[in-house]
Amino acid sequence: MGTASDVVDAFVTAIEAHDIEAALALVTDDVSYENMPIDPIVGKDAMGAVLTGFLASAVEVDWQVLRQHEIGGLVVNERLDRFRLEGGWLELPVAGFFEITADGLISRWRDYFDMATYTTQLQALSP
Amino acid sequence: MGTASDVVDAFVTAIEAHDIEAALALVTDDVSYENMPIDPIVGKDAMGAVLTGFLASAVEVDWQVLRQHEIGGLVVNERLDRFRLEGGWLELPVAGFFEITADGLISRWRDYFDMATYTTQLQALSP
Repeated sequence: MGTASDVVDAFVTAIEAHDIEAALALVTDDVSYENMPIDPIVGKDAMGAVLTGFLASAVEVDWQVLRQHEIGGLVVNERLDRFRLEGGWLELPVAGFFEITADGLISRWRDYFDMATYTTQLQALSP
Repeated sequence: MGTASDVVDAFVTAIEAHDIEAALALVTDDVSYENMPIDPIVGKDAMGAVLTGFLASAVEVDWQVLRQHEIGGLVVNERLDRFRLEGGWLELPVAGFFEITADGLISRWRDYFDMATYTTQLQALSP
């Protein structure tokens, strides 16, 4: 088994590949997925539904991990999450905190970002 | 001299005390203060002006550092920044990244947060 950082790297790679199944294989059944402006999404199924909807409109997904740090079972990264929509690339700066279990699964994923930075671009770039 | 975390702790304490002078004594002359939804604010004077305006309307400032990690000269924290305004407490979840020089000064401070979470409460709680 790899490091906690390897788990996050594999998770990001799965997201970029639109491979929700591979992403969900890396989280615990009771995972808490927390986008800070909104309520936590709890459980693997709920997370899968949200991620599916979230990625549906993206022709291409490119999450650039700018900096990543591992502190025990916690992985912290600063990212530029990029989504290619019909009208062009949407770019969202994000700070992510991933808690990794001893089994190498993500049990909590908390992202901090500015929601309006996302929604404004989404409106501008969607048909 | 204390650790990088001590520098951030002292900085937060100065902010809570509305003591801009003490806060600015802990940053480099060319500090970059980056609230991710908006352009970086560069330089100690510019930072002082922004912080002064930012804190002016708060009767009380209480920044709760929920978790804090030190990775070499980098300090990462998750905070609940609380401001008591005339109408009550404004609460803002923030992820902060502070780069600390060998001299124990903050050279970059980057905060990730949802701007609307701040502005919506600001409007509701201001006279």
